Parts: sequence; C-alpha cells; structure tokens
Amino acid sequence: MISVEEARSRILAGLRPVSAEMVPIAEAWGRVSARPVESRLTQPPRDVSAMDGYAVRAADPGPYTLVGAAPAGHPWPGTLGAGEALRIFTGSVIPNGADSVVIQEDVSVDGASVSTGEPIRPGQHIRRQGQDFAAGQVLVPAGRRLTPRDVGLIAAANHPWVCVHRRPRIAILATGDEIVLPGEPLPEGGIVSSNSHALSALVRACGGIPVLLPVAGDEIEVIALAADQAAGCDMLVTTGGASVGDHDLVAQALGGRGLAMDFWKIAMRPGKPLMHGHLGTLPLLGLPGNPVSAMVCAVLFLRAAIDQLQGLAGGPPPTLRATLGADLAANDHRADHLRARLARTESGWTATAFARQDSGQMRLLAEADALILRAPHAPALKAGAEIEVIALSEVGA
Amino acid sequence: MISVEEARSRILAGLRPVSAEMVPIAEAWGRVSARPVESRLTQPPRDVSAMDGYAVRAADPGPYTLVGAAPAGHPWPGTLGAGEALRIFTGSVIPNGADSVVIQEDVSVDGASVSTGEPIRPGQHIRRQGQDFAAGQVLVPAGRRLTPRDVGLIAAANHPWVCVHRRPRIAILATGDEIVLPGEPLPEGGIVSSNSHALSALVRACGGIPVLLPVAGDEIEVIALAADQAAGCDMLVTTGGASVGDHDLVAQALGGRGLAMDFWKIAMRPGKPLMHGHLGTLPLLGLPGNPVSAMVCAVLFLRAAIDQLQGLAGGPPPTLRATLGADLAANDHRADHLRARLARTESGWTATAFARQDSGQMRLLAEADALILRAPHAPALKAGAEIEVIALSEVGA
Repeated sequence: MISVEEARSRILAGLRPVSAEMVPIAEAWGRVSARPVESRLTQPPRDVSAMDGYAVRAADPGPYTLVGAAPAGHPWPGTLGAGEALRIFTGSVIPNGADSVVIQEDVSVDGASVSTGEPIRPGQHIRRQGQDFAAGQVLVPAGRRLTPRDVGLIAAANHPWVCVHRRPRIAILATGDEIVLPGEPLPEGGIVSSNSHALSALVRACGGIPVLLPVAGDEIEVIALAADQAAGCDMLVTTGGASVGDHDLVAQALGGRGLAMDFWKIAMRPGKPLMHGHLGTLPLLGLPGNPVSAMVCAVLFLRAAIDQLQGLAGGPPPTLRATLGADLAANDHRADHLRARLARTESGWTATAFARQDSGQMRLLAEADALILRAPHAPALKAGAEIEVIALSEVGA
Repeated sequence: MISVEEARSRILAGLRPVSAEMVPIAEAWGRVSARPVESRLTQPPRDVSAMDGYAVRAADPGPYTLVGAAPAGHPWPGTLGAGEALRIFTGSVIPNGADSVVIQEDVSVDGASVSTGEPIRPGQHIRRQGQDFAAGQVLVPAGRRLTPRDVGLIAAANHPWVCVHRRPRIAILATGDEIVLPGEPLPEGGIVSSNSHALSALVRACGGIPVLLPVAGDEIEVIALAADQAAGCDMLVTTGGASVGDHDLVAQALGGRGLAMDFWKIAMRPGKPLMHGHLGTLPLLGLPGNPVSAMVCAVLFLRAAIDQLQGLAGGPPPTLRATLGADLAANDHRADHLRARLARTESGWTATAFARQDSGQMRLLAEADALILRAPHAPALKAGAEIEVIALSEVGA
C-alpha cells in the first residue's frame, strides 16, 4: 500500500494539459487560460478625469471662464488657456493645457463663470495615461482559472476572444450487476446508481465534462466493451469492481485491453482499493464502489487530475485550520478522512466528526461540511486541539 | 446616505424566489432545490453485507459447508441452516437464517468447507435495512444549493428528475457614449466595455443567467428603449450613469418609464452612487460605472439578490478572520472595502491592503484576493490586528 501523497504524485505524473480552444469572453468564466493575455491598448488611453468637475490649470486660482464641456467619449478638441475651465466628467480626456481637475462639489458656478475657494494641487483628480495598464502588458498569465474580474480585465484590454484549455472529458463507468439508473425498473437486490451522478457533478464543478458511459454488468467482456467507449476522452474513471473480492473484474477486463497497472491500494480510509494505470495513453482511475469512498477519493485524486489536465497545477486539496469539537481516538496505519460538521466561531472554525463513520452512508456524507484529516498513526486528540480539515464546499464536492 | 446593511435589506425586501422547473439530475449540480426531496426507496433495501466474506449464524462456530454464492444483485433464494455458510459480497443481501458476516481475510476455505478461528459477534459486518435512509424520508430540504453529494443522494433515492428554481435572468445594461464592446472599432476617447462582462461572469458564478443588453449611449430615449428590453427578466442591472454629475441620465430615462426610486446613495467606498428601485415589478439595481465600484457593489448586493431570487436566503457575503499585514489609517464615515492580498500562514490568514486603492484600476482589482472590511469611523489599526475580510474566490468574484 502506498501513501495518499505518493498516489497523487503518481497519478499527476502521467497527466499533460489538454489542447486549447478560443472561446468568447462571455463563456470564459471558470476556464483556464492557455496563453498569457496581453493588452491591446493602454488604459486609460489618455490622461482622464477621475471625478466629475472642471479641468483647469493648477497655477491659476480662478475665477475661470467656462469654455465648454467634454462628456466622456467626446474629447474637447481645443487647448485650455489661462483663466479658463472646461466642464469634465469621470473618464473624460483632460484637454491640452489643463493639468488638474476641481471636483464639482468644490466650485460655484455663475453663468459662464466658475470659481473655487479650495487650493489646487497640480495633477489632482487625474488618472494618468497607462496608470492601469499599457498596450503589450501581460494582464493574465497562462494557467490561471479566470475569475469574473479577469474576464472584465480581458474585455477592457479589447479581447472579444480568449484562448483557454478545452474542458477535459472524463468518462465515468459504473460497473456491477446490481446497478440500475435512477427511474429504471429496480429488481430485487438492485441498487440505484449514485456514484456516477455524484462524480459527474464533481467533474463539472472542477471544470471538466462528464461522459456517463452505459452501466456495465459483472462480465469481463461487457466491462471491456464499455471501457472502449472512453476512446477520445482524457481520463477513464470506473467505480466498483476494485476490491480484493472475487468480483474485481475491472482489472481483469481492462487487463485484456492492455491495462498497464500502476497501483491499486492506498493506505487510506475510506477508499483503500483505488486503482491507477493507463490503457494505452488513456489514464485510468478506478474508484471504490462504496459511495463515501468514491467521493473522498475523488476529492483527493480526481480533482487534482482534472486541475492538471486543464492546465492548473494539480495538488492536494486546500485545507483550513479548525478546532476539534469532540475527542478523537488514535489513528491506525491508514490516513483517515472523517466526515464532520464545521461551525463558525468567534475566532475561526470548529470541526466535529460524526459519531458514525460508516462509509456506506450517503446521507451523512451529504450532510457533512468537511473531512477531518488524520495522518497515519496520529495520536488521540482532545476537543479543543488544532486540526486540518478539507472544507467540502471549497473543493467542488 | 444609508448604510450597507440597510441597503442590502431594502434590496432583498422586494425579491421573491423565481418559479420552479424540473431538471434531470445530470444538470442539477449548483441549482437550488425548490421542493424537499423525499426518498422513493429504503437504503439499504434489505440487510446487506458491508464486506466481502461469508454469511453465517453467529451462534455456530463452524466449520461450515459452503452452500452457494450471492453476488451483489443476485440474492440467494434459500434459508441458511446450521453449519452452513454462503459466499457473499459487499452489498449482497443477507440470506434468511444468517445473522453475521465473516470477512474473507478471516476464513480458510478447503473445497466446500469454510472455517474461521475468529469469534463472531452477532450482526457483525451487516448494514441494516434502512440504515442510510428510509422510503418517504426527506433527504434534501427545499432551498438548498445542490452539491455533487446531494446529486448522488437524490440519484440513490431513485429520482431521475429534481425540482429546482429556474436560474434568475439578470439583464445587464451598460450606458455611456464612450462605451464600445470588445473588438468593435474604438473611437478617440472611447472605452472598451468591461463592467458588463465582469458582471455577466459574476451572474453565472452566482447561478443566474446574464442577458447582455445592447450598450445605450447617453440619450434619455435610447436608455429607456434599451431598458425596455429587460422585460421578462428578473432584475435589471445598469452600470454607469448613476453619479451626481450632469450625466446621471439613467434615473431620468427610467423615471419616464415609471421608476419608483428607493435609494441612490450608500455610505460606502468604493461605490457610493448605487441606485435601487422598481420599474413596475422589475427590480432595478443601478451600479456605479467605475469598474472597481461596480464589482464591489455586485459582491455586496447583486450576489445576495441572485441568491434570494433563486430561493436561498440572501445575506451578507461570508467573511474570514485575518491578521492585518500592514497598518491601516482611521476610516471616515463611509464603510470601506480595501483591495488586499491574502496569504496563508501557519495559524490562518494575513491580509495586506494594496498601497493604491484607486477605484479605477482594474488590474489591481483582478490581482486582489480579498476585500478588507472597514466599518464607518473604524480606528487606525496596526499590522497584526485582527480584521474581517471577504475572500473574493468565496463569493464568485
């Protein structure tokens, strides 16, 4: 059995970013930039006013003669002379000859005469040309997941399109004679498929496209044929069929298709029987059939894989520091991931593990806010101790 | 001028959840449930094995005669007698007559004879019927944003469809003679539209559907006609045209369409000129034209509005506690929202405000990780003090 960290490293070692595509900025949110985005213009394009007011010469105390107005988008073509003021608005180009803006709250206007009682600092209320960014400047690096603010910045830099990695296609194959899809006739002993739907949603949350393969029954040739449908995908994820029992047919079925197995056991709980390998160039992740194990393994490994496939640096899920809400027993040799509630406190977070940690219980999994991380051989801890947790809402789960 | 909190309350007071629709579970992730989801079945449907092993009677120490096998999905139809064992797998139905499972690691098998040296606890390694959930039990309440785990649970409860609030349609209207769309010809003094694209992405991140209206120039009738296009949307968001200058044409234009103005100034920075009202039944949010102000107001108000429209409880954005990385000056009478970097430390987070807080700078906004919250009249603070911040990644920004 290998450690969680080694398993993640070995999974990520085989993954290269998928190819790029051009998308309109209206569809760029959440995508990962594949190239640096350089500005096509200088912002502001000229010295512009930061406020609504009057452009003047700072050396000139006024009163001023109002010579015109320059609404934003309508630059004033003249040159401002001594004793003159130009009505100006936020974003308006500062006219030649002017060097300062007096805000409208600080002036009195009488017909065409404008005066102020305030001292004027040269350059006041002016945004300098290029103060925000300059033409040719890299505004967004490659390999960044684009936020709404990035999308606004890319738009401001005059790009209607942006080059991003395409969404990785993740094939999901549920196996087991007992598995039926929701709403289909349910025979005695049948179980409704849940893992593949939870995993599909997680794939979407991580930025991928789930490809839900037909459920394969427990026959070697049926599983092999189902897996063939993953051709053209960037990763194949299986659920079930990976235990050490008589029914770990997935490895046998894919073995017949040339599976190069990397590892199939991790020193963790829930989720020991996690399988990793390659079918030709197609990476394979074989998740346990148990719903809790499948989701915990997806948070620890599949999420990192999708990140790396779409051009981000795959790595461990982010963690929070929390205070333990109830005592924990000492851990054994497997890294544990306890389903827990998180509660906000005055000073931070409290995490309290559920009393029941049965890995078959989907309802408790859905009600959990976090996974408490317990290293192999971690000692018993009392309530109030500091621990690391994965907040499930932060990892798309 | 009213406070941030009062503004949010007044905006939310006018908003009711939009209507519901049925979506397939494959599209349910991130949507908000409009009705409680009750289970259509009991899980596990019978007492089932939690492990791969052998079903036996606990009172019976063995050795046992192997009478058959019950793969998951293939229940064994007989009744287990004294001295008998049935091969069984994780999820297999426990046969009549058996009350315990011996895991396969603890037995030795010799032909049809199975024996174990371990004591057997009655009921061991059995998941009881209904241990996870029962038919008729509410598994997901109404008004919950569905996680991947919820989607898995709904699938397990045998629902192929789920009833969710439809995505609120948010019309976005940029105004200003100087505004052109990215990639369009850019005249002297023109500015490329950025707010509406950043806001569109934020609307998507919050679960809404952005409707990007044609840009309206600075003419009352043009703005009024553009706003008419928002018919059928759930909210109209304008940007620009809301200052106290001569060019606050939006209020005039919409006044001619029957705008009932609620308020138009908030004691905050950036973003004082925020307008709220109703055009008939259509809620209106008039954001400042300045990109930084528009985004900060969207985080504080638009996000809460979209939450409430889709059936969640609208409220203030979640905050984190952080340690201040550099001194802050005392604040004036307006609530401030300082763009800052967040850095992870051993014990939590450090937030350091950018030296430049010019609300025209989109590049710094895009580089920010957080907004440091400064209450009206907050005193000067030294580095190391505790403060509240909004992590922008947590609020879809």
